[in-house]
Amino acid sequence: MGARTAQRYAFHLLKAPTHEAKALADAVVNLKTLIRTCEVCCMVSEGQLCSVCGNPERDRATVCIVEQPRDFWAMERLGRYGGTYHVLMGSVDLLDGIDLDSLSVKPLLARLKESSVAEVIIATNPTLEGETTALHLIDRLRGLDLRISRIARGVPAGSQLDWASRAVLEDALEGRQEVRP
Amino acid sequence: MGARTAQRYAFHLLKAPTHEAKALADAVVNLKTLIRTCEVCCMVSEGQLCSVCGNPERDRATVCIVEQPRDFWAMERLGRYGGTYHVLMGSVDLLDGIDLDSLSVKPLLARLKESSVAEVIIATNPTLEGETTALHLIDRLRGLDLRISRIARGVPAGSQLDWASRAVLEDALEGRQEVRP
Repeated sequence: MGARTAQRYAFHLLKAPTHEAKALADAVVNLKTLIRTCEVCCMVSEGQLCSVCGNPERDRATVCIVEQPRDFWAMERLGRYGGTYHVLMGSVDLLDGIDLDSLSVKPLLARLKESSVAEVIIATNPTLEGETTALHLIDRLRGLDLRISRIARGVPAGSQLDWASRAVLEDALEGRQEVRP
Repeated sequence: MGARTAQRYAFHLLKAPTHEAKALADAVVNLKTLIRTCEVCCMVSEGQLCSVCGNPERDRATVCIVEQPRDFWAMERLGRYGGTYHVLMGSVDLLDGIDLDSLSVKPLLARLKESSVAEVIIATNPTLEGETTALHLIDRLRGLDLRISRIARGVPAGSQLDWASRAVLEDALEGRQEVRP
């Protein structure tokens, strides 16, 4: 946050009753002590396992790889995906010195080798960093006996060709799928 | 246009020199006499053939079906597509009584039967009307010996999963494509 926002928060706390300030301080401490990482998928979690990995009804044969916890939540909000996840906790950004090994890839590879995963869905963002991460990941998954898929890029539902950017139209044309009538 | 806009235009013409008003009147007459329909693809055109159908370097084996002239131009702006087009001049809207036969489908079918088209790319918009048009078209193309494809729907390039609507995420997940490392 900026200096003015910080100042506003500080003055609010000065005026607030002591128990409120204490509650905020406790929440900050709890954040660092109670929140940890799911042992299977590296998602932030309050327990040993996150809500998905701890759910016996989720299909462990499918793993959706996302960059961040917020992408995990975006997929969960959809309510259509019944598999599990792996959260990389970032994306490859070579200019910033972040390569695949700076992310949670080691636990992913260990998991894929040990368990019976049939499909990995690479759901990194359709940005430069997300695509770079996807390419590096595909390279690293070479040789493992599983189906690798990438979420579809194209024109967004509800939009129009006329509004689409160059990159979006290119994706739509190149990613066209055969229809069997 | 609305009444106020029409009034503004009328007063502008009243103040404008006569030759300017005459030029506008001529342009309106020319619009109706000079602009016609391309004999092959139904695009608006000044000649018998539009700029694409009249170009011997365009690949006649691929036909991209679009709803409107503006979609034709969107694809042309991309500068990556070397095939030809067919412009439906609208989309199916059953609530408004517009079915496939209200659009330029007859000349399309005649063209596909006569010439050696190998692939038809259905590039109607990813909207309700566009998808309905695509479904009806696919049904009508049944039995013709050609590859039918549909442009890709999914997350738009440069975007993030977290921003995507439900429908966009669903498309991205369902339309995922297998990667061969």
